[in-house]
Amino acid sequence: MNGPPRPRMDAANAALLTDLYELTMAQAYLAEGMREPAVFDLMVRRLPDSRNVLLACGLDDALAHLEALAFPPEAIESLRLLELFSEDFLGYLRSFRFTGDVHAVPEGTPVFAGEPILEVVAPLPEAQLAETFLLNQVTFQTMVASKALRVVRAAAGRTVVDFGLRRAHGTDAGIKAARAAYVAGVHATSNVLAGRCYGIPVRGTMAHSYIQAHEDELAAFRAFASRYPEAVLLVDTYDTLEGVRNVIRLARELGADFKIRAIRLDSGDLLVLAREARRMLDAAGLSRVGVFASGSLDESGIAGLVGAGAPVSGFGVGTRMDVSADAPSLDTAYKLVSYAGHPRMKLSSDKTTLPGRKQVVRVVRGGVAERDVIGLHGERLEGEPLLATVMAGGRRTAEGAGSVDAARARAARELAGLPERIQDLGRAEPPYPVEVSPGLCTQTERLRASLEGSVSRD
Amino acid sequence: MNGPPRPRMDAANAALLTDLYELTMAQAYLAEGMREPAVFDLMVRRLPDSRNVLLACGLDDALAHLEALAFPPEAIESLRLLELFSEDFLGYLRSFRFTGDVHAVPEGTPVFAGEPILEVVAPLPEAQLAETFLLNQVTFQTMVASKALRVVRAAAGRTVVDFGLRRAHGTDAGIKAARAAYVAGVHATSNVLAGRCYGIPVRGTMAHSYIQAHEDELAAFRAFASRYPEAVLLVDTYDTLEGVRNVIRLARELGADFKIRAIRLDSGDLLVLAREARRMLDAAGLSRVGVFASGSLDESGIAGLVGAGAPVSGFGVGTRMDVSADAPSLDTAYKLVSYAGHPRMKLSSDKTTLPGRKQVVRVVRGGVAERDVIGLHGERLEGEPLLATVMAGGRRTAEGAGSVDAARARAARELAGLPERIQDLGRAEPPYPVEVSPGLCTQTERLRASLEGSVSRD
Repeated sequence: MNGPPRPRMDAANAALLTDLYELTMAQAYLAEGMREPAVFDLMVRRLPDSRNVLLACGLDDALAHLEALAFPPEAIESLRLLELFSEDFLGYLRSFRFTGDVHAVPEGTPVFAGEPILEVVAPLPEAQLAETFLLNQVTFQTMVASKALRVVRAAAGRTVVDFGLRRAHGTDAGIKAARAAYVAGVHATSNVLAGRCYGIPVRGTMAHSYIQAHEDELAAFRAFASRYPEAVLLVDTYDTLEGVRNVIRLARELGADFKIRAIRLDSGDLLVLAREARRMLDAAGLSRVGVFASGSLDESGIAGLVGAGAPVSGFGVGTRMDVSADAPSLDTAYKLVSYAGHPRMKLSSDKTTLPGRKQVVRVVRGGVAERDVIGLHGERLEGEPLLATVMAGGRRTAEGAGSVDAARARAARELAGLPERIQDLGRAEPPYPVEVSPGLCTQTERLRASLEGSVSRD
Repeated sequence: MNGPPRPRMDAANAALLTDLYELTMAQAYLAEGMREPAVFDLMVRRLPDSRNVLLACGLDDALAHLEALAFPPEAIESLRLLELFSEDFLGYLRSFRFTGDVHAVPEGTPVFAGEPILEVVAPLPEAQLAETFLLNQVTFQTMVASKALRVVRAAAGRTVVDFGLRRAHGTDAGIKAARAAYVAGVHATSNVLAGRCYGIPVRGTMAHSYIQAHEDELAAFRAFASRYPEAVLLVDTYDTLEGVRNVIRLARELGADFKIRAIRLDSGDLLVLAREARRMLDAAGLSRVGVFASGSLDESGIAGLVGAGAPVSGFGVGTRMDVSADAPSLDTAYKLVSYAGHPRMKLSSDKTTLPGRKQVVRVVRGGVAERDVIGLHGERLEGEPLLATVMAGGRRTAEGAGSVDAARARAARELAGLPERIQDLGRAEPPYPVEVSPGLCTQTERLRASLEGSVSRD
């Protein structure tokens, strides 16, 4: 050991990015000989008030983690230092591989409260050790994708660019938020690394600092345009409408060489300024120069602008989308629903779980999703099954190898197949119906009676 | 190149974790010969409504990034693929090192709106390229530390353990939130990797799955206690008070070998359940067994329990602290305040900046901080200066090498020196006073007049 690892997840320490109790419980399971297959459901217990639907995301990282999960010597040494683990258990970890199966809804699938987004079927210690990381990635990415689809809906076909990296919660959040937003239909990102990793188009404009560093705004515009003829010019550093006038001056200077794509508004009353800027640009014969808006925007700000007919051709959306500002977490859970072939449940207030391995089906009529049914795995259910086997024996299946582009295409297709009230930004009344199948109802009631009986017997 | 990099920040790609415009602006600056020293301030423009004070955090990662910032061949190749950059500029990046100075408030320092948390002084392209990463880390870590100090305050001396990894926004957020919370006074974390990286005590209890996997709750308690005699037992899987009875049964079974430290409540009415559990444990002669509470807690939930005299000895706090649920971002900015020796400012509505390099002093009377003054660097100001030189010529100074423990000690000391109304959870009236020095006022007004004059002359 050469001191503590760098504070950054990498292949050597990824297995340590877990809650301690996963490891203490795994050690206890092994000592007790409890290696039978367990089934854990990862689902969202309740939707945030302001969400009619969620968009499943994060599966790719979840599966990549399970495929790679291992405890190299540095990780073993870190655990030994905690003085909680036996050499037997450390030996088990040394040769650990995840050998289980995962059944999941593909990324880009609309999901609702209570529906398993993924199910892990694996020997109990392995399934337990997967918990923290799977929750971390699936919760966060599903949350951002679910926010971003609202932003895309509000923009009603106009371009949306992700600007959120600077206020995302750390480096991983910046990368994954760009991906989740792209899956949800956002068109591009300012994040160079996310663009490179996922093939997302990368876009940028200019910052106030560039304007400020020059003698005056027109000099800055002139210099930037000479290098980037199709740039987007930021006009609000000093006085927004004077900035627009400077763009018009530049157009006169450059004549046919003027190819600036848009101006960008980043502060003030965006509706008023967009209208006035549009009028000024049109009057100067620059009707092909767009107006791009940014600055604390979210779906409601965008819907307000679009609804008022603001002449805006595109939006830069940052903080509020990438941190899902109105709902910065989801009430996810990873719950044991079966062990050694026997269904399991918990009865904690407001947190009761549905026991047993499951399937979710979506009933579609006339091209529109009508309702979902959560049923037992193997139960005969009418509708399109959502859970597919994405990992078998610790290795991804063909269905588990989905690309970002496939997830994005699926999201567009599946969202368009939801009832309009569910796609809309306002709270859907009634909410999308999610039913529990007769078989699952029976199993739940039977197990509840048996558990309550055993509790009250004491 | 062997295809896109893994979607995870590492030494080879960290330089790409940036907004595209930092790179396009840097290329333009270099082409224009603009390499003079620039000063950028990183500050929070406004405090969230529910915050009286922020706790500066994230500096260590910011400095580590600047020290390591480089563009290895894979990064250069990724940039070349964008078809935006000249070979001249890629050559500049190939030998890029950050050579500037950083002046910053040490981690664990209370800060207020408008005060620079750090200032970068470097050749303009270098200072510009630092922007996105510095904002990403300092914003997020300061946000979590500022939330966590409220949780610690509410707990009024009781133990607080960070349980937030599973719903933090990705892997980096999980690691850094544990660190920021520890700096703010949280006592331990469930996050094994954060514990290892930073020397934070690591704690864990048990999950519902452990109980459910066993034949019954008492069998689960018995098995866990045999391996971890001083464990915390989770009692709410089926019926909370029956869970407490099972703990008491176990105590009778084990006699002198019963060393269970606490029971854990994770759902239901925590006040009612804590009182009843306490009464039952005391009646059974188990007064040394504590009651540990968790489940959607934040500072207001904790303050409610503590205020009502709930017999709770410790709290597990997760999601709401790690995502700073009521204020999941800070309104940070990284603004050019000087270039080539000339002060700079912007005038955008509500986003006006104070020009020039600065110092912030804290005026302390009788051991209590009375007010802060933001002044010019070099101006004679009465009070304790907050900004220190933490990096010089691209290398950390002794003052830039602060440890997590030093930051935590500083936070405890400095927070205790704030007026009570600022430490309290309620909104402070009046807020902590932050003044602008005479010298900085004059400079700001002079520059504003000059900029407005130049705008209105056109």
